[in-house]
Amino acid sequence: MRAAVFNAPYSISVTDRPDAAIAEPTDAVVRVVLSCVCGSDLWYYRGDSPFAPGPIGHEFIGVVEEVGADVDEINKGDFVICPFAFSDGTCPHCRHGITSACAAGGFFPANGDGGQGEAVRVPLADGTLVRVPGSGHSDETMRSLLTLPDVMATGHHAAVCADVKPGSVAAVVGDGAVGLCGVLAAARLGAERIIALSRNPARQALAREFGATDIVDGRGEEATAAVPELTDGVGVDAALECVGTGQAMETAISIARPGSMVGYVGVPHEVELPIDETFFRNNGVRGGSAPVRAYIPELLEDVLEEGFNPGRVLDLETDLDGVAEAYAAMDERRAIKSLLRVGTI
Amino acid sequence: MRAAVFNAPYSISVTDRPDAAIAEPTDAVVRVVLSCVCGSDLWYYRGDSPFAPGPIGHEFIGVVEEVGADVDEINKGDFVICPFAFSDGTCPHCRHGITSACAAGGFFPANGDGGQGEAVRVPLADGTLVRVPGSGHSDETMRSLLTLPDVMATGHHAAVCADVKPGSVAAVVGDGAVGLCGVLAAARLGAERIIALSRNPARQALAREFGATDIVDGRGEEATAAVPELTDGVGVDAALECVGTGQAMETAISIARPGSMVGYVGVPHEVELPIDETFFRNNGVRGGSAPVRAYIPELLEDVLEEGFNPGRVLDLETDLDGVAEAYAAMDERRAIKSLLRVGTI
Repeated sequence: MRAAVFNAPYSISVTDRPDAAIAEPTDAVVRVVLSCVCGSDLWYYRGDSPFAPGPIGHEFIGVVEEVGADVDEINKGDFVICPFAFSDGTCPHCRHGITSACAAGGFFPANGDGGQGEAVRVPLADGTLVRVPGSGHSDETMRSLLTLPDVMATGHHAAVCADVKPGSVAAVVGDGAVGLCGVLAAARLGAERIIALSRNPARQALAREFGATDIVDGRGEEATAAVPELTDGVGVDAALECVGTGQAMETAISIARPGSMVGYVGVPHEVELPIDETFFRNNGVRGGSAPVRAYIPELLEDVLEEGFNPGRVLDLETDLDGVAEAYAAMDERRAIKSLLRVGTI
Repeated sequence: MRAAVFNAPYSISVTDRPDAAIAEPTDAVVRVVLSCVCGSDLWYYRGDSPFAPGPIGHEFIGVVEEVGADVDEINKGDFVICPFAFSDGTCPHCRHGITSACAAGGFFPANGDGGQGEAVRVPLADGTLVRVPGSGHSDETMRSLLTLPDVMATGHHAAVCADVKPGSVAAVVGDGAVGLCGVLAAARLGAERIIALSRNPARQALAREFGATDIVDGRGEEATAAVPELTDGVGVDAALECVGTGQAMETAISIARPGSMVGYVGVPHEVELPIDETFFRNNGVRGGSAPVRAYIPELLEDVLEEGFNPGRVLDLETDLDGVAEAYAAMDERRAIKSLLRVGTI
């Protein structure tokens, strides 16, 4: 089969690899229909995180091609969403809803297959995969389904961790795909005002479409100064940190009102928490690797209804052969998020 | 009037100072009946935190001697509890329940008076003071009322921030007065199991009396190893960090199961949060300076009922002249918490 591989920073190519195949009786093989590139893929793409050369990608939806002998819930032919982490659904952490910490689980690319390829061996298929009901979904729906393996569920996790409630005043730091999904998630959870931090007109427009009521066209100290002006000096009830840098975390904490939560989902890179400041302001900080599997059912339900379209973050479209450009466009911020059309349903 | 003062590390004495007096129309003057020494007083006592020589103490209950012209809710003769922070009760932060971040507020010792003295000028008296109903309270009740300005409310804050719920498995790091009150708070909020970390037999016994179901007789790596053994390798649902050191925070995070909260109330001293670890385990960290004023009404109600006796943490008793020994005994861990009998009701 053909699959994208990381060779070295700024070098992504497509190569022939061994076909995805059942290795454990709990595995399934999923033929990829749509895949995409994640903001977190840019860390190794840019050489900012160590990463072994080899297969890449962890966001895909597709059709089950084969299941192992112990797979009961998932069947050949099912159209499925695969979370970026696999999980058994039965361990204590899964039962507490933290599927991303599954005692038997792990993260894609796993076992030789990445999501940016023609097929993927999915471990713990019964616990991991979510079947999509119905058929003949529109392209708009398909694109939104593709956000559920990671980016929409991760934005939702930021909003949940930030404790967004009906009536909340929320702010979202980061205008990447996760940040924009964070805006959508905050709106979905009932936030009354949503302040999006963005300096990019196209992203500002999408943030507004997703429910942002205010835009702060700045970051760092500019944002720290602007948000209090918008909130009578109080700060926001819920701050979503969707970048993963120290500056983004500092900004998020600085604009959160005393006693409120900062939800963070950007993989931390050189982030230090100013604990003296959070102590005296009673800010909580909560987040991490989103338990996507636990969130998919409720988000899927909304995607299958009209009007909930997180797929709008996918603003560049190519195929597997275009994967290098898919990365380059995101790296250069020419694209928010790149879609790869890999197969047909 | 006479009041305790800090001269230099390990030097506390009692001296004559100007009488507490109304300075603002929103002030009250409270004659101190009972006062006590806080674990946080030991930071400057030991020279570990900078502190200006002068009056000390921030935990006291007493009788209102005089009120300013704009004080409406509090009257001369009221028996009152004074939180360690004063607050107006009307600013946005107070209305959100974070009275310790009151926009107009501050912390005792303020304006020349500390709580370890014969009388205290209390700013923003209407917002700050809580009247105790009834009269003729037993000495046991009086001692428990004395824990409400800080230590019991702070232990409660740790439990609230750690998200202790009915049925939770909780662990408390720290066997000082706040940690012990954290055990009591976790029990009050319905924790099913409470693991107390303590190496001191007397404190272990009090922890059990307060509701601890398990004792871990170790700290640091010993505790990190022992708690999983008690929880089938899962970790606890709620970890209370009641010390304020880096080691205590590390321990609390290491024993919290993925997805759970660490509530912290020890004033941080050289604490660094291992954000990579909290990210991959999805642990939240929340806490700070307890919004005591917001918590007092519900805790007061319980103290006035039979059987809720946080005052049991006060295991050394002296008068104002004995204040130096009150500090020394806590510093040397001969006492959990020292009570000062300053006046009569």
